[in-house]
Amino acid sequence: MGSLASERTVTGWAAKDPSGILSPYTYTLRKTGPEDVVIKVLYCGVCHTDIHQTKNHLGMSNYPMVPGHEVVGEVEEVGSQVSKVQVGEIVGSGVIVGCCRECTSCKSNIEQYCNKKIWSYNDVYTDGNPTQGGFASAMVVDQKFVVKIPSGLAPEQAAPLLCAGVTVYSPLKHFGLMETGLRGAILGLGGVGHMGVKIAKSMGHHVTIISSSNKKRAEAIDHLGADEYLLSSDETQMATAVDSLDYIIDTVPVFHPLEPYLSLLKVDGKLILMGVINQPLQFVSPMVMLGRKSITGTFIGSMEETQEMLYFCEKKGLTSMIEVVKMEQVNEAFERLERNDVRYRFVVDVAGSKLDG
Amino acid sequence: MGSLASERTVTGWAAKDPSGILSPYTYTLRKTGPEDVVIKVLYCGVCHTDIHQTKNHLGMSNYPMVPGHEVVGEVEEVGSQVSKVQVGEIVGSGVIVGCCRECTSCKSNIEQYCNKKIWSYNDVYTDGNPTQGGFASAMVVDQKFVVKIPSGLAPEQAAPLLCAGVTVYSPLKHFGLMETGLRGAILGLGGVGHMGVKIAKSMGHHVTIISSSNKKRAEAIDHLGADEYLLSSDETQMATAVDSLDYIIDTVPVFHPLEPYLSLLKVDGKLILMGVINQPLQFVSPMVMLGRKSITGTFIGSMEETQEMLYFCEKKGLTSMIEVVKMEQVNEAFERLERNDVRYRFVVDVAGSKLDG
Repeated sequence: MGSLASERTVTGWAAKDPSGILSPYTYTLRKTGPEDVVIKVLYCGVCHTDIHQTKNHLGMSNYPMVPGHEVVGEVEEVGSQVSKVQVGEIVGSGVIVGCCRECTSCKSNIEQYCNKKIWSYNDVYTDGNPTQGGFASAMVVDQKFVVKIPSGLAPEQAAPLLCAGVTVYSPLKHFGLMETGLRGAILGLGGVGHMGVKIAKSMGHHVTIISSSNKKRAEAIDHLGADEYLLSSDETQMATAVDSLDYIIDTVPVFHPLEPYLSLLKVDGKLILMGVINQPLQFVSPMVMLGRKSITGTFIGSMEETQEMLYFCEKKGLTSMIEVVKMEQVNEAFERLERNDVRYRFVVDVAGSKLDG
Repeated sequence: MGSLASERTVTGWAAKDPSGILSPYTYTLRKTGPEDVVIKVLYCGVCHTDIHQTKNHLGMSNYPMVPGHEVVGEVEEVGSQVSKVQVGEIVGSGVIVGCCRECTSCKSNIEQYCNKKIWSYNDVYTDGNPTQGGFASAMVVDQKFVVKIPSGLAPEQAAPLLCAGVTVYSPLKHFGLMETGLRGAILGLGGVGHMGVKIAKSMGHHVTIISSSNKKRAEAIDHLGADEYLLSSDETQMATAVDSLDYIIDTVPVFHPLEPYLSLLKVDGKLILMGVINQPLQFVSPMVMLGRKSITGTFIGSMEETQEMLYFCEKKGLTSMIEVVKMEQVNEAFERLERNDVRYRFVVDVAGSKLDG
């Protein structure tokens, strides 16, 4: 047990430069403030964003950088004002760890849209120190940004829910798309896409996977439980599916035409973008106007939605499909993720790894 | 009074070829069926679409073509099953005159999104004959597509409401944007844009006109009653207005960048496209994702919304700004509209014109 009065020294795995290669790095965590929760990290998922950040793809990286924002751990200590969780509980922490608490978004409990949100790593905390993520023995997180992991979820299974999971749950919830019987599609079958299938199926939706090749057909239908597989390069299949979908969750992270997918939507259908793509996407206005369709997108989800989604997944018995690795395999995992060679999410067994190299 | 058993001969002004020049044209209207209303046309507004259709800009024009879809007239005769209106009442008819009545859109009373909708002109009716519009002495319209013009609205004032008016009312209603105190903007100050200002102001919104020049500043503020005028070419003004709007009604009918306008929207803000633009519009995905913004668009409004909007306008004492012309001036009016030289809508005094040339 640490002490409220002292900073604690931890070891994480950090990128030291834009090579993005992670290696052991020792640093101190802030003293546990009244609202803080000290989390002993058990598992941490690997998200595509971790690669973008460690390799400075966005041109905003600071080093050393300990990535990781799908963190599941055990509460080791709590500040004097912490009421949300107790020592010994299994908790999670995600993409953001701070917000201004004063803007309209914060006051509406959609703090993920706060312009002053603080990212869980590669950002600067209110104390002026860099934030560091979950590939480390411990983190200190304000209780607002901590969720309870329900007892029915295995900790390693829960990790991908904290980013990939809530990323698909949030738009379905917000846009009123949780009703049984809706017809949805997932475009792009990676970490987020696979959670999309799982969550949409748990809501009782008819789920189509749209893909440019037939490579993933068998596993989409047989292993993930999708209802249909639509080959986007097959004009006949695409024509048959016109006007058939209530929504499409579009996880493709590179430029792609939108019109073929807009045409698949019913009146009032929604194309929900999840991929940060800096090359402009294109569409002609009649494609949205003549069916009151929307092109929209969301960013992770609120803490409230995250907690709700975890209970939803517990109730539905939803599991993520993961590959658990040790920290010494993390660089290989990053490489494989870049090649899309994972079904579907790597999770690092942080507590079970030798962190000091 | 006509007879239920006979077709009636009418004179309208038709385009005979893609020159789009209108001249007198005599044709027959179908026999009055049980659900039909015979309307003696009093006034008919001039919409930009009339130009596109008469000049074959969309490549789908058939001649002779009598345009006009903002029709206000007096009921002259009704079929045996007509219960909605009575002989002598002032009624309106708009952009569509038929639908399949069986699809999801029809059953949801949003028949404007029916894939088999019948346009009020340049289309083929269920009897196999061409539909002809409101620049004519009379029309026969199924009662479903007839609305009552409330007694508090002058007939010539009501004409532009039947297309331009409902076109802006419908998205505000559908997207839950009728609340007092919302901040909206209108991009493009033509026929639809001016109705946008009027209707949004009547809802108690703070309304900004966004324009690329200062030409319309005085009239937007002084005559139309807009609250603010934002010069889109002024970077300082645009930066000040970031994150400030709940919605933008974008009536610009040609290619334009979307990103400057997306940046003006608050979290959950909506960019509502009204212009049919066949050149692809562009945006980068983070612009929508990082504020859960939507790019959407709507097409006119339902008959229910049209009727509701007319009562709304009566209650609010809303008037359109129109220039009334006789039929012999209609070609000049089309020319001036093409140059955007009208404040803000031409309305043809059909009943007060000599139609047979």
